[in-house]
Amino acid sequence: MKAAIIGGTGYGAIELIRLIQKHPYLEVGSVISNSQAGSNFSESYPHLSEIIEQPLEKFDVQNIAKENEIVFLATPSGVSSNLVPQLKETGIKCIDLSGDFRLRSPEVYETWYKHSPAPENYLNEAVYGLSEIYGENIKNANLISNPGCYPTASTLGLIPILKSNLADSDSIIIDAKSGVSGAGRGLSLTSHYAEINENLKAYKLGAHQHIPEIEQVLTDESGQPITISFATHLVPMTRGIMCSIYLKLKEKVTTEDVHQIYDEFYKNKPFVRVRPVGKVPATKEVWGSNYCDIGLHVDPRTNRLTIISVIDNLVKGAAGQAIQNANIMNGWDERAGLQDIPMYP
Amino acid sequence: MKAAIIGGTGYGAIELIRLIQKHPYLEVGSVISNSQAGSNFSESYPHLSEIIEQPLEKFDVQNIAKENEIVFLATPSGVSSNLVPQLKETGIKCIDLSGDFRLRSPEVYETWYKHSPAPENYLNEAVYGLSEIYGENIKNANLISNPGCYPTASTLGLIPILKSNLADSDSIIIDAKSGVSGAGRGLSLTSHYAEINENLKAYKLGAHQHIPEIEQVLTDESGQPITISFATHLVPMTRGIMCSIYLKLKEKVTTEDVHQIYDEFYKNKPFVRVRPVGKVPATKEVWGSNYCDIGLHVDPRTNRLTIISVIDNLVKGAAGQAIQNANIMNGWDERAGLQDIPMYP
Amino acid sequence: MKAAIIGGTGYGAIELIRLIQKHPYLEVGSVISNSQAGSNFSESYPHLSEIIEQPLEKFDVQNIAKENEIVFLATPSGVSSNLVPQLKETGIKCIDLSGDFRLRSPEVYETWYKHSPAPENYLNEAVYGLSEIYGENIKNANLISNPGCYPTASTLGLIPILKSNLADSDSIIIDAKSGVSGAGRGLSLTSHYAEINENLKAYKLGAHQHIPEIEQVLTDESGQPITISFATHLVPMTRGIMCSIYLKLKEKVTTEDVHQIYDEFYKNKPFVRVRPVGKVPATKEVWGSNYCDIGLHVDPRTNRLTIISVIDNLVKGAAGQAIQNANIMNGWDERAGLQDIPMYP
Amino acid sequence: MKAAIIGGTGYGAIELIRLIQKHPYLEVGSVISNSQAGSNFSESYPHLSEIIEQPLEKFDVQNIAKENEIVFLATPSGVSSNLVPQLKETGIKCIDLSGDFRLRSPEVYETWYKHSPAPENYLNEAVYGLSEIYGENIKNANLISNPGCYPTASTLGLIPILKSNLADSDSIIIDAKSGVSGAGRGLSLTSHYAEINENLKAYKLGAHQHIPEIEQVLTDESGQPITISFATHLVPMTRGIMCSIYLKLKEKVTTEDVHQIYDEFYKNKPFVRVRPVGKVPATKEVWGSNYCDIGLHVDPRTNRLTIISVIDNLVKGAAGQAIQNANIMNGWDERAGLQDIPMYP
Repeated sequence: MKAAIIGGTGYGAIELIRLIQKHPYLEVGSVISNSQAGSNFSESYPHLSEIIEQPLEKFDVQNIAKENEIVFLATPSGVSSNLVPQLKETGIKCIDLSGDFRLRSPEVYETWYKHSPAPENYLNEAVYGLSEIYGENIKNANLISNPGCYPTASTLGLIPILKSNLADSDSIIIDAKSGVSGAGRGLSLTSHYAEINENLKAYKLGAHQHIPEIEQVLTDESGQPITISFATHLVPMTRGIMCSIYLKLKEKVTTEDVHQIYDEFYKNKPFVRVRPVGKVPATKEVWGSNYCDIGLHVDPRTNRLTIISVIDNLVKGAAGQAIQNANIMNGWDERAGLQDIPMYP
Repeated sequence: MKAAIIGGTGYGAIELIRLIQKHPYLEVGSVISNSQAGSNFSESYPHLSEIIEQPLEKFDVQNIAKENEIVFLATPSGVSSNLVPQLKETGIKCIDLSGDFRLRSPEVYETWYKHSPAPENYLNEAVYGLSEIYGENIKNANLISNPGCYPTASTLGLIPILKSNLADSDSIIIDAKSGVSGAGRGLSLTSHYAEINENLKAYKLGAHQHIPEIEQVLTDESGQPITISFATHLVPMTRGIMCSIYLKLKEKVTTEDVHQIYDEFYKNKPFVRVRPVGKVPATKEVWGSNYCDIGLHVDPRTNRLTIISVIDNLVKGAAGQAIQNANIMNGWDERAGLQDIPMYP
Repeated sequence: MKAAIIGGTGYGAIELIRLIQKHPYLEVGSVISNSQAGSNFSESYPHLSEIIEQPLEKFDVQNIAKENEIVFLATPSGVSSNLVPQLKETGIKCIDLSGDFRLRSPEVYETWYKHSPAPENYLNEAVYGLSEIYGENIKNANLISNPGCYPTASTLGLIPILKSNLADSDSIIIDAKSGVSGAGRGLSLTSHYAEINENLKAYKLGAHQHIPEIEQVLTDESGQPITISFATHLVPMTRGIMCSIYLKLKEKVTTEDVHQIYDEFYKNKPFVRVRPVGKVPATKEVWGSNYCDIGLHVDPRTNRLTIISVIDNLVKGAAGQAIQNANIMNGWDERAGLQDIPMYP
Repeated sequence: MKAAIIGGTGYGAIELIRLIQKHPYLEVGSVISNSQAGSNFSESYPHLSEIIEQPLEKFDVQNIAKENEIVFLATPSGVSSNLVPQLKETGIKCIDLSGDFRLRSPEVYETWYKHSPAPENYLNEAVYGLSEIYGENIKNANLISNPGCYPTASTLGLIPILKSNLADSDSIIIDAKSGVSGAGRGLSLTSHYAEINENLKAYKLGAHQHIPEIEQVLTDESGQPITISFATHLVPMTRGIMCSIYLKLKEKVTTEDVHQIYDEFYKNKPFVRVRPVGKVPATKEVWGSNYCDIGLHVDPRTNRLTIISVIDNLVKGAAGQAIQNANIMNGWDERAGLQDIPMYP
């Protein structure tokens, strides 16, 4: 099955290409980059020399629909809200990796993203692609809104305890830390090597556009309105996200009790690995892979639960989960093309 | 004034030497390293070639007391509890950078450090050297217990809001992140380059020996028993600590209100810089310096305060604050030898 | 085909496991680690949790021979010289990733490695596994001596120009630079994070044990005795080797002329990519892959050729080339299991 | 003495400010940045908060001359060729850190820099500020052309052996490696974190504008025309340059012989440290300091000398040497303000 990739010179697209190239059923079709159309791919990315030598193309709906059966949109926010309606008219399936279809409320989108929202009927149609939670809906979807990187790590870390009804839902604090590749390939002082190396920064305190996305999912899953405290930090590394999550427990339970809840919840989910009692994961342990690894610790002194949830922001946090969703949509094994061992060291 | 340094081949000692060398009144006297006694300093640390060429000495109380007027102990925990009593008998002033004299309760020390505690009379005599808070006591002290790196960043970040009586004292969560130099020069897989580079790890959840130290200070300063949630993380960089602190506010206040409290509290403290409203500090902005920089943000959605507090773990978190305390003890300007601009980039 | 891996907790073994897990015909059989025998693999390497959960085994020749058809030895130098004779007696095929069988002369081995050499008949039997050059011999080999990381990058960079007879063979200088993973997982101050991060070191000037290996290959291939100048440098990164090679040309030729030689030489070699005129490769462009990428530049001012040759030290410089050799030995496509796109970014 | 700094928001200017702030006789006067004039310094550089709060000014010759006694120009190439003539007319002393006055030949400048050259009379007046070599001329200079970073490390490494007449002057190869701060604060894909981290790049092979500068100095000092091979590499670190220099010796000499030459040559030069026989320096050993550290190794197999020369590119390679030159010009101790111990770790 041929897949078109839109946003072809960003890191998200590059990661899609890396994963599709080793996929048993998918194959790279058109690669769209309006800014670099006409040039050869390996000029922008010499690591692809002799592997992917095709020219970058301009966006052309008819062409895309003719040559491909599925489209991945790895564009900045505010772009796919325009492209998806055009693409969908041709009947082609779309997986959008941007934030444009994640929030059900157009007003909330506008408030946090400062862009015009997508048409409401598309917002309603879009299925939120948190694969482990919404697999049943994803199976029948034609438009997937792929989750953000922070929301993936946060919600996979929180949903089991929220569903257990043991969490004080008003007490959730997410201290999120990310490598720099999440900011993309666009030039900015906040991605400038000498400013980032040997440095740790907090940014967008209480203002990150992933906040409403996380709250929407947690509210849906817990059945009660949830407001979180959320702070993001930039760590001097290329890939990896860690969410350190803190919440008050409503009852006295042990670390072992909580482990049982998580082990049970994720027992048939091949990409979520709950570490044994006493262990917590590091980001490198999922580097380059589609895993979300989770560690749990109940502090008996405070009766607070700490959840450590890690992913590779470009894989489970973007391209990998998009492929996982494509697998589910097409009835393939959800692991297809995604079974690589994390790169270590 | 000649200063002896004990623990001469660790990073703490090296940083003391760097700072003393540029100090107007202090000078490096004896440097003690039992493990490397007899060898020249620059063999272990070639960056000191032609600057400090003196031989490392064995620990000899009488010699130290004869040749020096003040002693800095930069030894691992469990060592200075033995050395300080011997040194103090000679009447020499001591500044201990380890954890051995920080906790007033010998039982608490033993629980968290797994070493035998120091004699109780010395625990009682020791003045906790958080310079901005205990300056008056430090002036007259003969034995200073220099604060830990995480406690320095945490308590300087928290004390003003606790003293304001606006904080829900039961709601404090400290998400602490440190560079790797804090773990010292001793070999360990957790300081092994290929394991740490491009990696982010959480460690010692709820079990870090700095927890009782932070709680002791916060309890003293707030006048009520305080229990914190505290999680530490290892960041792929050499120097720098950031504590991201979260707490519930008891009343509805704005970020501006909180700023006023902090600006007022720290107005005569040259080494604490409160960033303007809307800004938070990064660790590189204090790199190599004795500053503690603080950023503040009240989230009106949750009525929680987020405090970002950063220091250089080897300077304000260790050797720099030790020098600052020596300055205060000797009636010198507390900034003496510590006025360098942070290294940037 | 089941493969045994000896030296199971080193980085070489871990990389073999990563590559074998995605290989169409190979499968991980026994994993041998005398030091950690009995423990589960994922205790040492949590990134393998739920992927490889088998216990580490003690070295037992009969068992290995019974359970596996091929053995990869990823042991430190001085170990496989003892193990290989035992293994070979059982008839099992061996690929040794250490330096023990690379030098034909036992005396030279002893001089540079300071270990007792392997028995001479095994030295004679061993086929040097530089896949692109010795493919024909590798096909029929039962004992492969897998090349060192620096020799792979150096010799692939040099052989075409040496065979062209254009190089002044007395003028070769190799300035070699490596990431830190090449030093393995063993603890050492030279792999200690705070000593390596933000640092660049030269080491073992004129004394590296890869010098005689490189000279042996170049002498064989050029047909004349070659002595090189070789200096190694440690770069603050985990993976990657770059050899910057300088030599005097005997005739006036252009960069284009030299490109033609290299393009022709490597035209059927899928893992060597010669960059276009005017471009040189960076190590990240081969990260995680089996490629050796080469850039070429003739300076008309000096009539010297500069060759930039990069590999991932753990893949083409170790485990990847070992798999490539296993592919050739078994008559499989030499690319089997090795076609992943480099990880970028 | 008040010093004006032009190019006030680049890394060179920031480093000048850091060094001047601790200088016993110099003080920061005007700071000029046309692009950010009017804004406060600490807005661009929060690490300077409460230390340097002055506003950035527009370039105004009269004002600069009135308020300052010396000017440091830390501007990109092609700028100071215009500014210096205006400044010099007022009689103020100038130290230019750019390449605009380093090459005596306007044609050579134009060829390598692709800018219009400075007026020839200024080129003739400018004294090349390699402090250890041209101290006598610097004393009486009114216009200093401060050397480039690579030329400083290269020429200090080479001059003693060239002057000894032992080097084959046609055999010099300089493999130069630099941290990323040398490229400045201007945004570029080659300074983008995710492209640089965990990567090693060669660039500008045989085309770097520092080549004619190095050759000019070496030709002057050796008394014979010298052409070098020169390749530059970008290393994933912020600060530090290492030049690994290779040359053929005309006679059979030992490492010890060469050491004697260097020890003698640099015996009264406080900022050049020659490592003992068998040792070579690492870049971190000079980090943040004005030292140039040199290691030497003669390989008896090839009779080639390898010289390892390291500096901090922003200190001895830029701002530090500029201050050293200001010290010499003003008859101060050349070490004034520059005696800090390198930052380690």
